Amino acid sequence: MTEGSETPCTARHIHHVCIAVRDIEATLASYTALFNLEKVEIREVKDQGVKAALVKIGGSELEFIEPTDPNGGIARFIEKKGEGLHHVCFEVDDLQKTLDRLAAQDIQLIDKAPRQGLAGMIAFLHPRATGGTLIELVDKDTVGR
Amino acid sequence: MTEGSETPCTARHIHHVCIAVRDIEATLASYTALFNLEKVEIREVKDQGVKAALVKIGGSELEFIEPTDPNGGIARFIEKKGEGLHHVCFEVDDLQKTLDRLAAQDIQLIDKAPRQGLAGMIAFLHPRATGGTLIELVDKDTVGR
Repeated sequence: MTEGSETPCTARHIHHVCIAVRDIEATLASYTALFNLEKVEIREVKDQGVKAALVKIGGSELEFIEPTDPNGGIARFIEKKGEGLHHVCFEVDDLQKTLDRLAAQDIQLIDKAPRQGLAGMIAFLHPRATGGTLIELVDKDTVGR
Repeated sequence: MTEGSETPCTARHIHHVCIAVRDIEATLASYTALFNLEKVEIREVKDQGVKAALVKIGGSELEFIEPTDPNGGIARFIEKKGEGLHHVCFEVDDLQKTLDRLAAQDIQLIDKAPRQGLAGMIAFLHPRATGGTLIELVDKDTVGR
């Protein structure tokens, strides 16, 4: 790090953790019992081949995704690793600037520019950048849009 | 739910997400480059057979664990699923009361009473309670102790 060595951590906090499941209705029933959740809405996101729900747990969120495309990435993830934690999303101040900084550091990105996701304008880093963990970033000014 | 149906969500927020890795030093170097982290301390937790570090990422934390016991649970986790997300920890107001409520709802717990963990006084729920995801709870009054 050169210029950045004086600056503080570039992420604001964990925005959500995503959990891949086989049966989103059954999973939401379990988490509702655990955390006394309010009723949540399940959305079908056809272009991503998933059913999804974003659930507020106090000041954080859990995202649940169930594959609807048996050949998609989420179905393959569950087949390989089983149901469970899929990725962590951090909120950042300026996503494009963050991605440019990471690219300049030769950190591997899946998305070089922000794109629309469930949580707002998002981008994924490549798991190779982190030793196997899939990290998503969301721009704070777009959260919930 | 009977009495609880009027009450809000019983967790405050995600306290940390834990990531199991083979080489904690190399992983911390990657996350330092990603998020411009300050230097973090790695602790050896002999009774749990791990080296561990809690890392502040803005208002949240990541916990990294590397197995030092090749026959322990973390080593087996990595062997089965690969390096990556291990559990999510939620901060709750009164952990013993929360555990009592969950036990009364016949939700499977690993720990029926709080015990000392890296993040404070903690307890784990059984992954069967959540469809495969390991959830930890930490009592808010003990965080960082």
